[in-house]
Amino acid sequence: MPEIERNQKTMMIFSSDLDKVMAAFNIAIGALSMGFQVNMFFTFWGINVLKKENMSLKNKSLMEKMFGLMMPKGVTKLKLSQMHMLGMGTWMMKKRMVAKKIALLPELLELSQSMGVKFIACEMTMDMMGIKQEDLIDGCEIAGAAGYLEEAEKSNYNLFI
Amino acid sequence: MPEIERNQKTMMIFSSDLDKVMAAFNIAIGALSMGFQVNMFFTFWGINVLKKENMSLKNKSLMEKMFGLMMPKGVTKLKLSQMHMLGMGTWMMKKRMVAKKIALLPELLELSQSMGVKFIACEMTMDMMGIKQEDLIDGCEIAGAAGYLEEAEKSNYNLFI
Amino acid sequence: MPEIERNQKTMMIFSSDLDKVMAAFNIAIGALSMGFQVNMFFTFWGINVLKKENMSLKNKSLMEKMFGLMMPKGVTKLKLSQMHMLGMGTWMMKKRMVAKKIALLPELLELSQSMGVKFIACEMTMDMMGIKQEDLIDGCEIAGAAGYLEEAEKSNYNLFI
Repeated sequence: MPEIERNQKTMMIFSSDLDKVMAAFNIAIGALSMGFQVNMFFTFWGINVLKKENMSLKNKSLMEKMFGLMMPKGVTKLKLSQMHMLGMGTWMMKKRMVAKKIALLPELLELSQSMGVKFIACEMTMDMMGIKQEDLIDGCEIAGAAGYLEEAEKSNYNLFI
Repeated sequence: MPEIERNQKTMMIFSSDLDKVMAAFNIAIGALSMGFQVNMFFTFWGINVLKKENMSLKNKSLMEKMFGLMMPKGVTKLKLSQMHMLGMGTWMMKKRMVAKKIALLPELLELSQSMGVKFIACEMTMDMMGIKQEDLIDGCEIAGAAGYLEEAEKSNYNLFI
Repeated sequence: MPEIERNQKTMMIFSSDLDKVMAAFNIAIGALSMGFQVNMFFTFWGINVLKKENMSLKNKSLMEKMFGLMMPKGVTKLKLSQMHMLGMGTWMMKKRMVAKKIALLPELLELSQSMGVKFIACEMTMDMMGIKQEDLIDGCEIAGAAGYLEEAEKSNYNLFI
């Protein structure tokens, strides 16, 4: 039996801060360019990254509606972890990135998907926050801790972001 | 001499945010279930996770008393990193977890201990915050950076949480 | 061809919180003492760690001046991630560390440099924030995601801090 090549890159995306998520996607795209398989497991606040912008809050319980209203829907709504300043800081930073031709998050997400990143949504988080498969962007797998750890075990690079 | 099997999982728990610590314990329990040795090294704010709920502030210096009063004592006192909302958000999230039969932190801690997780308290942090061995829950080892790095070196999975 | 020994330690320093950066340097010094090569890649807020204290804001655009004014210049200006309390908490913690003979950040930085740590500044962050090589302390390399990932690939220990 040949030994498994443990060279995948796996990131657990726990945060939905704009800056941290951007760092994660830049790492992902770098690693994909070098030919590695990249797995991104979105848990807790990180699940917000995978939400459809037009995710519906119909047919949700009161508490699920509250979670839905209070948390960002998708990559265009994320905020900086610092200097958000009621939106001004986040807006300024994005403006600066455009001026400097630095790719913004929606482009990074699209690019990494076209390069074959594997997005995995955390099952327990979805259950906890009342999020269904149809609330997430296309192409996501769903798994629990065991599924995540299987990918981690095939990886020589594991981050918690 | 046979080569060491480097397949342990080691996490440095720096944070004492309820949500991050829950993620860490869910990873730990998953990895323990798969038969791996799991080491959790609690440093800086993370040391709060290991505190006894009834930790005494007697015989502490003024500054140690202040640290003791301002920081959470044990897993039942931790707060969400976001949406804590003076306690309401944290309370809501816990309520939701109970409804969804998701294990809360005290159960996760107990379960991981019964499965054989290795808890290591950071020596320098204890010294800095004036915490003694008797202030911590039973079954913790105490070590410094060198002790932590020895475990990390036997691991193929290292996170900073 | 002999196989590469993948035993370096690589940390991506994303944060510029005093407490997290201190943890990173303590890990670095521990690993350097054990004879490992240690790479620290400073990105996003982390770039503040590498700034010269007397970094000039002359010849910067308006937005670059704003970034420069709002963000800490170098290790002596960093704040705790929690309990900063308008500076009092950070001051108290530093005072406590001195009393306990725990090394403060400027010493940790100097020590790790003398032990041969490799500091890498993130090119994209420098571009985004308008930071030039001469704004950074001596002895930093500059690289992008690809350069970072090359070091990560030679490492058996990768953290995101």
